[in-house]
Amino acid sequence: MTSIQPGRNGVTAASGFEASGVAAGLKSTGALDVALVRSLGPRFDAAGVFTSNRVFAPSVGWTRAAIADGQLSAVVLNSGGANACTGEGGRQDTARTAVVVAEQLDCMLTDVGVCSTGIIGVRLPMDKLEAGVVTAAAALAADGGPAAANAIITTDTHAKTAQATGQGGYAIGGMAKGAGMLAPGLATMLVIITTDAEVDATELDTALRAATHVTFDRADSDGCMSTNDTVLVLANGATGVHPEPGEFTEILTQVCANLARQLIADAEGAEHEVAIEVVNAATEDDALEVAREVARSNLFKCAIAGNDPNWGRVVSAVGTTQAAFEPEQLDVSFNGVMVCQSGAIGADRSLVDLRPREVHVTIDLHAGAEQATIWTNDLTHGYVSENADYPT
Amino acid sequence: MTSIQPGRNGVTAASGFEASGVAAGLKSTGALDVALVRSLGPRFDAAGVFTSNRVFAPSVGWTRAAIADGQLSAVVLNSGGANACTGEGGRQDTARTAVVVAEQLDCMLTDVGVCSTGIIGVRLPMDKLEAGVVTAAAALAADGGPAAANAIITTDTHAKTAQATGQGGYAIGGMAKGAGMLAPGLATMLVIITTDAEVDATELDTALRAATHVTFDRADSDGCMSTNDTVLVLANGATGVHPEPGEFTEILTQVCANLARQLIADAEGAEHEVAIEVVNAATEDDALEVAREVARSNLFKCAIAGNDPNWGRVVSAVGTTQAAFEPEQLDVSFNGVMVCQSGAIGADRSLVDLRPREVHVTIDLHAGAEQATIWTNDLTHGYVSENADYPT
Repeated sequence: MTSIQPGRNGVTAASGFEASGVAAGLKSTGALDVALVRSLGPRFDAAGVFTSNRVFAPSVGWTRAAIADGQLSAVVLNSGGANACTGEGGRQDTARTAVVVAEQLDCMLTDVGVCSTGIIGVRLPMDKLEAGVVTAAAALAADGGPAAANAIITTDTHAKTAQATGQGGYAIGGMAKGAGMLAPGLATMLVIITTDAEVDATELDTALRAATHVTFDRADSDGCMSTNDTVLVLANGATGVHPEPGEFTEILTQVCANLARQLIADAEGAEHEVAIEVVNAATEDDALEVAREVARSNLFKCAIAGNDPNWGRVVSAVGTTQAAFEPEQLDVSFNGVMVCQSGAIGADRSLVDLRPREVHVTIDLHAGAEQATIWTNDLTHGYVSENADYPT
Repeated sequence: MTSIQPGRNGVTAASGFEASGVAAGLKSTGALDVALVRSLGPRFDAAGVFTSNRVFAPSVGWTRAAIADGQLSAVVLNSGGANACTGEGGRQDTARTAVVVAEQLDCMLTDVGVCSTGIIGVRLPMDKLEAGVVTAAAALAADGGPAAANAIITTDTHAKTAQATGQGGYAIGGMAKGAGMLAPGLATMLVIITTDAEVDATELDTALRAATHVTFDRADSDGCMSTNDTVLVLANGATGVHPEPGEFTEILTQVCANLARQLIADAEGAEHEVAIEVVNAATEDDALEVAREVARSNLFKCAIAGNDPNWGRVVSAVGTTQAAFEPEQLDVSFNGVMVCQSGAIGADRSLVDLRPREVHVTIDLHAGAEQATIWTNDLTHGYVSENADYPT
């Protein structure tokens, strides 16, 4: 039995990794804004998944190329600027950042991953960033995971880390950031996961895609897909433990699920975390289509903010999908109370208590045996305030 | 030259139509809530388009069947309850409403259209509604258009009417309601249009589909498609004028465009009306896909509420589409200021003034010669308040 353990070590939970987080002045607040993660080996296997947005930042293009050979030895991350839509100059800034890391750590330039997050369409202050990378390299430490996790947050209210231990004693630990523009296509936000298990790059890629498919890919806070989403996993084999692939994938999935859940719990302005659970669908794709459509209904999301089990807004969203179902067979429950039964009026909605933060909306399509859950948030005054006032 | 004329006559702008609006007690406020529109002939040609939501109200099913033969002589409309997802009892309520109309007006049951709007999942108080229909029938008058337009509104802040005159002196007039759940698939909200031109049902259907395709279908306030959307047009030939089809379609389109624009201008909580204009697209479908994706970005909509020309939120939404474009060729202008040029930083965003209600966002895909515009709204505190607090 393995389970997620408490602890804030994140990317330094596994042995043979160092990390740091420093304040380079990219954030006007003076908060930590540059993070570095380094693998000490002996192996440097790595896998990654990236945003499927066709408008993607230079850091995504760079890291996708760097990881193509299945090897990474370090990842540099900055908050305070996404460096997206910044033209040829922005591409050169990303490359220059990797060059400084390679010089400082004496590693191959093509083994350095780069991640950026923050405002789109603004150039990074490279003098500050370069100096920050030098400082971060000097600060690398085996207990630097918490500082790194703090350095990558933007509108997040706190850092997110998770860790677990597998059979034979290997560890998987990770960190994540993301509070807005939170609707991954193939990946999400910035997530770095490390393990001291021995897992070659091909196995690592398979495990990562399996894990993200059912975790980050099913978090949809606000329907807006980022230009910078990146999930990386680095395996250094420091323990010499070669895990059974199914067990490794399961533990990796647990760590990813825990981080995804933390992201939804800290989404911009959110007052509720909402699981849209679609059951008895003809196919898993049908279940996902229905769940995502409901998760993206602003009327539904406002109703949750108002503690209102408004099932009419659920079924009207379901009705816009192509999924297999008959309208007169739809059942909808809020926190276990079936307020819509057979497509019509069910239990008294006053029986539903939506005051707790966590809400479960279950939609029974009566069309098969498949199911899927999307996690989303309510649409609140806080979300509007944060995104109407957030500076461009 | 024809143009939209001022005037509140709406569905009684054309000769040979009567209308009324009465308070039947469906709304707790005591406001008008039952409307009746009657054609005096000599012809009773009619056409309609309806919501493409698979979960649709009994009134939609009823009216779709009634209009199948291209004939309607009366339409009854109620606000204060959508009568959607109300099961077999709800279907019987719709039929019963039509029966009362047919009895009162001594017309064929199958020539009565029924429209309902309001809360989903609540049965209509049929005793009040039946009495209201009787009162409305007695109140029918050639100047009843304004009362009817007032009786169909829900969260709208005011009634919406439009009218125009065609060559030879025929009139087209109409009324519309809709303030939330405003994102039509094939139709929108409740819209009744009348004309005293002589246009047979087949021509009328062709003209209506052409008009709604470029008007109501391109209004997308909040991305939520209703269960009750209905647009009906009734032509009684009272003037004996048989218009040239192209001219009739053009004037009908003007009336529809005017009503659609009024709907967007009065959308729930809106502080801005925003035209998303996509130009130089490879196909019209590409232009529509891009415009709709941007119109549904909550981050973009919040930015507009904050008077912030945040083009990063535009291009990140464009990047999630399948439309033909190259990221490094995208231009984005806010009210004529090209803040994103060639996919990178353009003019100084401080040159953009977003304080006026009407905003034009132009996205140049540089991929062809097609274009399309979607009208949408910003996402405001008012929208959240109205939809978090709106009773189910």
